[in-house]
Amino acid sequence: MKKLSILGSTGSIGTQTLDIVKNNNSEFKVMGLTTNRNIELLKKQINEFKPVAVGVMDEEKADLLKKDVDIEVYSGIDGIIKIATLNESNTVVNSLVGSIGVKPTVEAIQSKKNIALANKETLVTAGSVVMEEVKKNNVNLMPIDSEHSAIFQCLNGENIDEASKIIITASGGPFRDHSKEQMEKVTVKEALNHPTWKMGNKITIDSATLMNKGFEVIEAHWLYNFPYEKIDIVIHPQSIIHSLVEFKDNSVIAQLGNPSMKIPIQYALTYPKRYKTDEKKPDLLEIKNLNFEKPDFELFPCLKFAYDTGIKGGTLPAVLNAANEIAVNAFLQEKIKFLDIPKLIEKMLNEHNIIKNPDLNEIMEVDKKIKEKTKEIIENEN
Amino acid sequence: MKKLSILGSTGSIGTQTLDIVKNNNSEFKVMGLTTNRNIELLKKQINEFKPVAVGVMDEEKADLLKKDVDIEVYSGIDGIIKIATLNESNTVVNSLVGSIGVKPTVEAIQSKKNIALANKETLVTAGSVVMEEVKKNNVNLMPIDSEHSAIFQCLNGENIDEASKIIITASGGPFRDHSKEQMEKVTVKEALNHPTWKMGNKITIDSATLMNKGFEVIEAHWLYNFPYEKIDIVIHPQSIIHSLVEFKDNSVIAQLGNPSMKIPIQYALTYPKRYKTDEKKPDLLEIKNLNFEKPDFELFPCLKFAYDTGIKGGTLPAVLNAANEIAVNAFLQEKIKFLDIPKLIEKMLNEHNIIKNPDLNEIMEVDKKIKEKTKEIIENEN
Repeated sequence: MKKLSILGSTGSIGTQTLDIVKNNNSEFKVMGLTTNRNIELLKKQINEFKPVAVGVMDEEKADLLKKDVDIEVYSGIDGIIKIATLNESNTVVNSLVGSIGVKPTVEAIQSKKNIALANKETLVTAGSVVMEEVKKNNVNLMPIDSEHSAIFQCLNGENIDEASKIIITASGGPFRDHSKEQMEKVTVKEALNHPTWKMGNKITIDSATLMNKGFEVIEAHWLYNFPYEKIDIVIHPQSIIHSLVEFKDNSVIAQLGNPSMKIPIQYALTYPKRYKTDEKKPDLLEIKNLNFEKPDFELFPCLKFAYDTGIKGGTLPAVLNAANEIAVNAFLQEKIKFLDIPKLIEKMLNEHNIIKNPDLNEIMEVDKKIKEKTKEIIENEN
Repeated sequence: MKKLSILGSTGSIGTQTLDIVKNNNSEFKVMGLTTNRNIELLKKQINEFKPVAVGVMDEEKADLLKKDVDIEVYSGIDGIIKIATLNESNTVVNSLVGSIGVKPTVEAIQSKKNIALANKETLVTAGSVVMEEVKKNNVNLMPIDSEHSAIFQCLNGENIDEASKIIITASGGPFRDHSKEQMEKVTVKEALNHPTWKMGNKITIDSATLMNKGFEVIEAHWLYNFPYEKIDIVIHPQSIIHSLVEFKDNSVIAQLGNPSMKIPIQYALTYPKRYKTDEKKPDLLEIKNLNFEKPDFELFPCLKFAYDTGIKGGTLPAVLNAANEIAVNAFLQEKIKFLDIPKLIEKMLNEHNIIKNPDLNEIMEVDKKIKEKTKEIIENEN
């Protein structure tokens, strides 16, 4: 039986993970849950899933919750780490948003937990450290991202040394056909209106800038130890083919599914088995057409940033992520414009002196400093 | 090292198999070759690949060849079987056309040879017997058909009990958009002009009637022990996705490639390894669109015949194949019209008294009688 700690259980991936637990309650038991500050929903989840302990990032909210429940409530980042390393759990679902997920992931791995990872910023920020810990501690790290789950499924029974290319598909987001001029005027509401996927706010903005796709390239690099020059992006507006792997004989394997996170979340938890889902099947006769286009690296400079920083390596991807986190947050708060997001990131990347082969402390130090600096710039310009 | 007997080495699949041998000569050695009557090409192949023996179906041609070469030349069906069971071979590539391939396949299996099977009529005619022998003799039977190779690749690393559907793609052939009236007037030249695949004459006509796709449904049933109601056909004019497998979690795996038989032939011979091929990669940015349509069972009654006979079983699929072989041959000789092919098949199917659980002799007896009877009808009506 998988005994789960779900980090970020009140978010989009977290609640869907709990749906899966509910549908397969002989296979899964919830041991720990965490939220940023949504203690109302967390209370309901505690009543339903009876975890042994929970974590709340926000200290005040944690104190409020303590009055209402009779289980252990931990708070702050240490509280999240406590849940990630619970003795009672053997598997951690990390659906945190942002580089806040790095330390809980690393500590969970060091506590020999298997990881189901939806928190891609963890691999973007600290991929080298995380993958080294995975190897050292001999745990499994399963991707929850639909693209990386697709790649994983395409590699099933295959020898990755015979793979010649990973092709990550992208819906292209809501602004795929926009002109540069239209991009200038994009509103928060428009950016949050993703054409094919229903997701949390931060990742939806990342999908509109295509930073999300850039992150996925870096994530694929770390998950599959695959060189950047062999990872391609193809725009596929229907989001039916979730990714493809090309092999040296020029045979290509693809994974398809309707756009739903339930399948990759469940697969990450049940692999190597497949269980039934209630999700709709992809019906090719209904879908009729699958289209493919070249991504526009000029209109979406975040894509270029991702490849460039990935290839340069060291602490640069941590800078990419940190600047992006702050910029996206500022855009969501309407403090900056949509096109200020790549501008801010570019500025931070250009100013950074890369530390090669950084350890976790160095990475987290860069993460912290770049976030502070990006915030400062935004405040000074407002 | 794979030591090959190639049955039908002068045909389309046979010559492509020899190209693969040439490109990987440290992996493969040719031990036996056979032809129907193309001894000129066979002579060249003997000089190049130095087999220990060859077979020629046509007795006169065999006698002619004997004068020119200093290796063993066997003749007739017994000669083909001799090559299929050569002591020096461990793998038989069966690229014969028609039910003539059944006996060599069965005897090769009984001689403990692994089989790479392009000759789909063998499984249509005698699937139950062939698969039983495969099991009993513990040999591998690898499909060469692009669709079944695709299905095999989609099932790599998967548990077939978790597969909920096999979806076989079909280009739809040259008459996909024809009206019934246009179908009446189809010429041999038009029928031989396949939109996406370059193949031998018989299979090209089978692709125009969609009998080929019907055969593939029966073939998939036997190869993967999969019920007919879970095998679907989807028209996909570009022939890029070669087939798909849907799993119980509603995740779908697909195999893609440019339309070339080199990849499935090579994969059947190198599995579980993949070797380089010179074939073009499928470039999604160049392909741009993949389309899917419902097959038209009214315009292409052979599809319906295949499902019906497959489900009824016994000797009925042998009737389907035998009547089709004779009808296609008569069409190629311009003795009958295109739409006479399904008419003749339907007549033969309706008149047949099914033998349940037939043995090989009963099947081959039906094959022979139906062929004679179909010929008779064609001659009487001309």
